[in-house]
Amino acid sequence: MSLNTFGHLFRVTTWGESHGPALGATVDGCPPGVPIDEAAIQVWLDRRKPGQNKYTTQRREPDAVKILSGVFEGQTTGTSVQLMIENTDQRSKDYSEISEKFRPGHADITYWQKYGIRDYRGGGRSSARETAARVAAGGLARAAIHALAPEIEIQGYMVRMGAHAANRDQFDMGQVDQNPFWTPDAQAAETWATYLDDLRKSGSSVGAVIEVVARNVPAGLGAPIYGKLDTDLAAAMMSINAVKGVEIGEGMGAAELTGEANADEIFIGNDGKPVYSSNHAGGILGGISTGQDVVVRFAVKPTSSILQTRQTITKSGDAAEIVTKGRHDPCVGIRAVPVGEAMMACVLLDHLLLHRGQVGENRGHIGPA
Amino acid sequence: MSLNTFGHLFRVTTWGESHGPALGATVDGCPPGVPIDEAAIQVWLDRRKPGQNKYTTQRREPDAVKILSGVFEGQTTGTSVQLMIENTDQRSKDYSEISEKFRPGHADITYWQKYGIRDYRGGGRSSARETAARVAAGGLARAAIHALAPEIEIQGYMVRMGAHAANRDQFDMGQVDQNPFWTPDAQAAETWATYLDDLRKSGSSVGAVIEVVARNVPAGLGAPIYGKLDTDLAAAMMSINAVKGVEIGEGMGAAELTGEANADEIFIGNDGKPVYSSNHAGGILGGISTGQDVVVRFAVKPTSSILQTRQTITKSGDAAEIVTKGRHDPCVGIRAVPVGEAMMACVLLDHLLLHRGQVGENRGHIGPA
Amino acid sequence: MSLNTFGHLFRVTTWGESHGPALGATVDGCPPGVPIDEAAIQVWLDRRKPGQNKYTTQRREPDAVKILSGVFEGQTTGTSVQLMIENTDQRSKDYSEISEKFRPGHADITYWQKYGIRDYRGGGRSSARETAARVAAGGLARAAIHALAPEIEIQGYMVRMGAHAANRDQFDMGQVDQNPFWTPDAQAAETWATYLDDLRKSGSSVGAVIEVVARNVPAGLGAPIYGKLDTDLAAAMMSINAVKGVEIGEGMGAAELTGEANADEIFIGNDGKPVYSSNHAGGILGGISTGQDVVVRFAVKPTSSILQTRQTITKSGDAAEIVTKGRHDPCVGIRAVPVGEAMMACVLLDHLLLHRGQVGENRGHIGPA
Amino acid sequence: MSLNTFGHLFRVTTWGESHGPALGATVDGCPPGVPIDEAAIQVWLDRRKPGQNKYTTQRREPDAVKILSGVFEGQTTGTSVQLMIENTDQRSKDYSEISEKFRPGHADITYWQKYGIRDYRGGGRSSARETAARVAAGGLARAAIHALAPEIEIQGYMVRMGAHAANRDQFDMGQVDQNPFWTPDAQAAETWATYLDDLRKSGSSVGAVIEVVARNVPAGLGAPIYGKLDTDLAAAMMSINAVKGVEIGEGMGAAELTGEANADEIFIGNDGKPVYSSNHAGGILGGISTGQDVVVRFAVKPTSSILQTRQTITKSGDAAEIVTKGRHDPCVGIRAVPVGEAMMACVLLDHLLLHRGQVGENRGHIGPA
Repeated sequence: MSLNTFGHLFRVTTWGESHGPALGATVDGCPPGVPIDEAAIQVWLDRRKPGQNKYTTQRREPDAVKILSGVFEGQTTGTSVQLMIENTDQRSKDYSEISEKFRPGHADITYWQKYGIRDYRGGGRSSARETAARVAAGGLARAAIHALAPEIEIQGYMVRMGAHAANRDQFDMGQVDQNPFWTPDAQAAETWATYLDDLRKSGSSVGAVIEVVARNVPAGLGAPIYGKLDTDLAAAMMSINAVKGVEIGEGMGAAELTGEANADEIFIGNDGKPVYSSNHAGGILGGISTGQDVVVRFAVKPTSSILQTRQTITKSGDAAEIVTKGRHDPCVGIRAVPVGEAMMACVLLDHLLLHRGQVGENRGHIGPA
Repeated sequence: MSLNTFGHLFRVTTWGESHGPALGATVDGCPPGVPIDEAAIQVWLDRRKPGQNKYTTQRREPDAVKILSGVFEGQTTGTSVQLMIENTDQRSKDYSEISEKFRPGHADITYWQKYGIRDYRGGGRSSARETAARVAAGGLARAAIHALAPEIEIQGYMVRMGAHAANRDQFDMGQVDQNPFWTPDAQAAETWATYLDDLRKSGSSVGAVIEVVARNVPAGLGAPIYGKLDTDLAAAMMSINAVKGVEIGEGMGAAELTGEANADEIFIGNDGKPVYSSNHAGGILGGISTGQDVVVRFAVKPTSSILQTRQTITKSGDAAEIVTKGRHDPCVGIRAVPVGEAMMACVLLDHLLLHRGQVGENRGHIGPA
Repeated sequence: MSLNTFGHLFRVTTWGESHGPALGATVDGCPPGVPIDEAAIQVWLDRRKPGQNKYTTQRREPDAVKILSGVFEGQTTGTSVQLMIENTDQRSKDYSEISEKFRPGHADITYWQKYGIRDYRGGGRSSARETAARVAAGGLARAAIHALAPEIEIQGYMVRMGAHAANRDQFDMGQVDQNPFWTPDAQAAETWATYLDDLRKSGSSVGAVIEVVARNVPAGLGAPIYGKLDTDLAAAMMSINAVKGVEIGEGMGAAELTGEANADEIFIGNDGKPVYSSNHAGGILGGISTGQDVVVRFAVKPTSSILQTRQTITKSGDAAEIVTKGRHDPCVGIRAVPVGEAMMACVLLDHLLLHRGQVGENRGHIGPA
Repeated sequence: MSLNTFGHLFRVTTWGESHGPALGATVDGCPPGVPIDEAAIQVWLDRRKPGQNKYTTQRREPDAVKILSGVFEGQTTGTSVQLMIENTDQRSKDYSEISEKFRPGHADITYWQKYGIRDYRGGGRSSARETAARVAAGGLARAAIHALAPEIEIQGYMVRMGAHAANRDQFDMGQVDQNPFWTPDAQAAETWATYLDDLRKSGSSVGAVIEVVARNVPAGLGAPIYGKLDTDLAAAMMSINAVKGVEIGEGMGAAELTGEANADEIFIGNDGKPVYSSNHAGGILGGISTGQDVVVRFAVKPTSSILQTRQTITKSGDAAEIVTKGRHDPCVGIRAVPVGEAMMACVLLDHLLLHRGQVGENRGHIGPA
């Protein structure tokens, strides 16, 4: 509801700029009694951390999370949890150019127009550093999910980099952690490495598509209309910096299918539960989870911080050229993988709590009376 | 927080099922003094109304809206506006089959699992009839936008039907109202007519992509993080029945571009305001409108109510076959055009009010001091 | 956020004016499977209905509620429930005087100043008729509470009328339904009857204090800070027309006590559960219910619609005199009793759902390990 | 909406426990361009700070606020403002007794029952230290009010301590800052000093009534029903620790008045604006401000942390006696004065923004056309 908050019952408010003293997430509504400590959250932050390989920004932040409230003797208390990450690598730098010129493709110009003030150092509020706060909150959400529904697994991975899509026939989920691109297609990883090297050398950048899957999500999460599980997932993913498209299951491709090709037929599995012949729906029907994998994809645009000269204007309204130097990722999509996972975790936990609140346990039985 | 509500300040709560006595929208937060009457809302409902041509369901509802509150002597009073549409065409029909069998691709099974009760007549809450309430609310939103920012124009149109995309080189916005598919590509309309006739005869259905454009949106609407204009648009569009993907500007295609291809260069226009060389961003940078056209697309899946036999199960867990007879659209995407427009209107009005609330007027000046 | 809505998970949005076609409540978040029909809600509306005795307004509305959505085959479905009450007794009347003059003590002047438009017939949105919608929503809340926590009982009664307080030593809860004032003090009822007759004859009016008790509320409802059970009760009661003060337990009188007089000592009861020596806290400690009776009181001001001449001004800014003729209650507090009960029901249900959502079941055990 | 958040557009989420590393407020929705720095907020915190005289707790915290985000070059940017106060005076102490026994009148028992875990050191989340975060947020709200409506003044003061009410005939607002009780009645201050000395020596405590007035509030803030200005003020004040009653204007006393005594007659002032013969309404009619002083009172119960022996139980369910040693205020109401002011500031700013969002400027004119 609030403009820096997401979630209904599990509510995350993020705060902080890239070059202020700190940033973080204020998390309200976490269930009590969830085992958590800083190390358990740090695991996820370390996955997102810049400077881990040559494909991500060389800004080297330890991104160490501190829990300032809401946890006592290793468990959540049910009160607000404050997760703070101090900004440590704030190089003194000459910002005079970008304080006057608007970088094309950045929020510089719209922030200025709206607010008349902006922290121009490193992107301020729209810096990708904000996503560290989401990942921290997602770490807490994962711990709570583990306590409430331990069977749920969340995994994100890259399925496209620029012109090159990964090949689903070659997917091996065991590969995801084995390459710098979090892709299950080992061959794509090799192709992308060369491709990205070339882009980086030319001072360019490229977009990517990330897919996030949640497995073993119970049937029944979500609601029919505005509280659809897919609505909240769309909002969660679209709220990430640089995301320009979100798909559930078949996504935009659903437009190209016929009704008989798209609708997943239903059978009874050996365990007496419904099974489906396919998962075009991405695990959600009518806004409510089916029990199949919940599948979301989102497109991350290429960073606009590139070493190539671009035309722009100054605050005074004069034409100008700009080259964005500095520490930037040629493919910001790489670091969006753990961010997408974090958003999935937050949305699922929120809906687990909402479902328990309104309904308690699923009320409809399928099978012999 | 509420699951049948959308919006922050201009808040729309929809209610009603396809076969109950009525459905509608409770609209809170509308500015006072907006000239409105039932006829002004009816215009938009008539665009969405079924039974207007052979491509949409033959259910013939007058869909006549009644304003029950919040309007006095032809103007909004600033209190809750109740917009009610009575259901009149409720044919007595034998629902015994669909009350027991789950239609593949429908919400039947998930509603049952979650709630243990559902109005199986015509889809209940997940019926496309719910969108009439959105269109009514959108009509009110349009009137309020007209009062606050009369230069804003909203137009939706179809850009793909199944396998056939419209050709942007042939777009003529004057054509949109001239064909049953709301497409600006007159040639596509012809192709689609034949294509859809064939699909209808074969008892099949097909998906579509709708694009909604808002022109003359002032710069400055939106917010950096969770209240991004694109976040709210994504949620608004994804909340529409059968939508499986949402794109802003370049959308999923942004993933395939390089930074230099994607970032829109900035110039000063003859009127001293910023102009852009292109609009890959879809009129939104960093969550805030740029002043360019705001461009959203969404994919509508093909209806799963088809005349072809599909495999499913019953509530008792037995295997079964199902054929969904009845009055259904071979391409529900057609009627999604005015719905998408309505959601755009609601989101823009909400952000106009939010912007005025937090900021007042834009605070940043571009040009000579 | 929304200004005509209350509640977190069980959310009630009311709409309608006293002289429009209808008014009602849009209720979101009701649990599914709650047995309900119009008759079960009508019971509560009939308690609030005007014209039942000479002490309440002679406006004779049947106040018949219609359920327009969210209920199927006698049970809630979990979707929005629309509760509508048509306005039938709209006497044609000359409103020219009150359309130009502001009645002292009414919302007339502030509505006009803020909105520049108001439905001056009968109070418009601020008419006490709005409370019918609350009572309808409260009827649904009671049904849901009955399904979730059937032991909870809610009872409201009057404890003061103007200068005359009821005597707690004489309270007999069986008397509450036996007199027109809903008071447990039979002797007070007699005194008040004479008192109110005199006031009515003189064209005057008087205020009242209502107490609402909820018995058998489980320990654990509420939250420490802004979501305190007492915070939500205070907001709920203060949102009722004409209420100017709200007290929990000892209320304003707590200011006069010492710490040892105010704090309720704790013992173990025969059933092994905590019992308290007293209930100064009104059943709430630190924002969370203790298991004792939840006790709320609120003061209703005297209606300002009186037959005595008062000084005021017109819209043109001219001095004027006004006498408010028409059908009015000499003590609107009487009809506030069922309204207060309804608000208690809504708040308790909301917190039952919130508690189940965040915590599930109470997690702390008192007693031998 | 969220359980640790208050406000609609100006939203404050507080976090932190009395004995954790820090506490604070995450403030969303502050207008951009508000001049602010830590010193400007510290002024208000210093008023609330413990240890300033013998009547408040001897815990000596510097309560130094740090602004971690949302402010750049001395102005708010419009993004989340994080206000952090580190806890420094955490004496190592033996908490073994209060970790096992529940203190009567405290949240100990309800927190334990609900959450099954609590930070028993110093009250945890329900410690009065939480109010430091409110005062910090209130300092920011005051700065924003100063920017938007500089004529508004907010002043809180004590009007009752235990058995002794201040005498309104002796009120001199210039006295408020001249005595340790923030009372405008200098004679009451003397009486209370002796009274409180005696209470302190006897190890007892006492309650108080605080009044907060906002002067020069423009007409038009608020809304008719649930978003009434008085509803939000009631919730804001009742959400403060230890508050058990809230009154607007005449408050509970309104119940004792007749209609002619209670309704404030309206006249035209010399400046052509409405003036009122009295202010029984407390500056609010129909939920909307009249332009008169907005007057709120709330009762603070006596602290239950007293040196007298009280009966209680242990977590194991055994009977026990308890004496609460430690640093406590004999009259916590004293320090509630700046807290009440802070809540008034937050509510007024929120409604200033809401009003601007929905309505813009007041639309109704009183005076010659």
